[in-house]
Amino acid sequence: MIRGKLCDGEMSRIINYKKNMVAFQGEPGAFSEQAAKKFFGSGVKVLPCRSFEDVFESVARKRALHGIIPIENALFGSIHQNYDLLQQYDIPIIGEIKLRIVHALLAPCGVKLKDIRKIYSHPQALGQCDLFVRTLKHAEAVAAYDTAGAAKAVKEQKRKDSAAIASVDAAKVYGLQILRRGIENDHRNFTRFLVISKRKPLPSRNAKTSIVVSMNNVPGALFRALSVFALRDIDLYKIESRPLVGKPWEYLFYIDFEGSVNNERSAQALRHLREITATMKILGSYPHGKTVGGPKS
Amino acid sequence: MIRGKLCDGEMSRIINYKKNMVAFQGEPGAFSEQAAKKFFGSGVKVLPCRSFEDVFESVARKRALHGIIPIENALFGSIHQNYDLLQQYDIPIIGEIKLRIVHALLAPCGVKLKDIRKIYSHPQALGQCDLFVRTLKHAEAVAAYDTAGAAKAVKEQKRKDSAAIASVDAAKVYGLQILRRGIENDHRNFTRFLVISKRKPLPSRNAKTSIVVSMNNVPGALFRALSVFALRDIDLYKIESRPLVGKPWEYLFYIDFEGSVNNERSAQALRHLREITATMKILGSYPHGKTVGGPKS
Repeated sequence: MIRGKLCDGEMSRIINYKKNMVAFQGEPGAFSEQAAKKFFGSGVKVLPCRSFEDVFESVARKRALHGIIPIENALFGSIHQNYDLLQQYDIPIIGEIKLRIVHALLAPCGVKLKDIRKIYSHPQALGQCDLFVRTLKHAEAVAAYDTAGAAKAVKEQKRKDSAAIASVDAAKVYGLQILRRGIENDHRNFTRFLVISKRKPLPSRNAKTSIVVSMNNVPGALFRALSVFALRDIDLYKIESRPLVGKPWEYLFYIDFEGSVNNERSAQALRHLREITATMKILGSYPHGKTVGGPKS
Repeated sequence: MIRGKLCDGEMSRIINYKKNMVAFQGEPGAFSEQAAKKFFGSGVKVLPCRSFEDVFESVARKRALHGIIPIENALFGSIHQNYDLLQQYDIPIIGEIKLRIVHALLAPCGVKLKDIRKIYSHPQALGQCDLFVRTLKHAEAVAAYDTAGAAKAVKEQKRKDSAAIASVDAAKVYGLQILRRGIENDHRNFTRFLVISKRKPLPSRNAKTSIVVSMNNVPGALFRALSVFALRDIDLYKIESRPLVGKPWEYLFYIDFEGSVNNERSAQALRHLREITATMKILGSYPHGKTVGGPKS
């Protein structure tokens, strides 16, 4: 191995490269990568990670400046695991984007629908497309590490009887043909992704803030908590209670509200909220995200 | 085929049999069946169904008096599909039960852990146990129709290299050995099940009520909606907002609150709520459910 001294220009390019890197869970062509490209632009450098925890670790250890994680799906609800990681790591949310999830059946060129015996994909994608999968009488659904990973495996195996369920982007990445597009059971399927980074978020006029609070279920606790926003005319965008296992009278609440924590009105509401909750964690203030990937986008 | 006239006693036995039947999604040994047995007692007659929609159809067409459906999981959130079916069918919720989900690796007798090459299960269960599955280097996860269905298939195939992830009950149902117990990533895993029936619910002193409302996102709409409960000192047990796809400013809200609709105070709150929401559907009033299936139960 040749070790050379890097000139300043090269070092700066390497640093910038890492700085602009976005960590995501999955293989190239995954929906998270698609969301990263819609958020940062198609030229963004990405760092594929094996798990959501690896995404957080990559940002914590400065292997990537940003991370992108799915937080809720319109059909399957909130991804509590990522809420747990947001609470565990001190990496704030700095942005969001909502991506319409369009699944496609991908196979090597020349393979026909009637030849398919095995369909590889991430367990959740197999579930989201099970009505379509059941119409292929001779095909068996096989769980894979992720949708794009399934597409990669199908390409590498070069078998004439295998297909993958993945994004249309994965077809381009792995040179597969699209046998069917839009095979998800429910076309109202979209996922909201959050962008995380240790870089201080910029204040924004069009901001929202996400928090997690825990409360003991004293009567009216939730209402009192929400009153701190109502008393200050602060609008709420999301509220979700999550019962805690083994603690039947304790709850976590996820709340998204209007405004940035830099804003005095929000700061007052949060101070008030801290008085009446057992624990509170601010996950970040960030600009409202766009919805992308619909039929016309 | 011999057709005979049934005597009154036989007919009444058949009617009672159907009357006591509980429809659930999955094969015998599924977690939904386990929940039904914990709710109604181990002698209850059950009707396995292929889909959640079939559970609702079975109750609607009087093939079963009751149905049981999962509605939320402590790790994976609310099952919006079943909320949609509760809104679509006029079959009220009459009870609930919370079941601790313990996954086990099941195989035919004589099969050892190191021999396993294929692990069959429902996609969600494979996801819930993926940390364990990854430790078995030579094993491939294969998606199956449901957890108990996977156990059944493994029993029928009699292969020496296959196992299933399913409940401990499924091991008993299909005569399989338990290779590992409690293989789920997160032991705080429980699912809340709802019991549905067209039989009029009995009023109860220990009741809760579930509703779904839709609202346009005018500032403070959610707070005004919750005020109808606070003004009457009615406690809230669950609240969850669900954004509607393609309608970025419209939301569904799932709300569970204290008391039965038979109760005058609840009726007043609901009349008040109807004034300020776009749509409202009462899903049912029912007694608070127990949590069962923990390490000690």
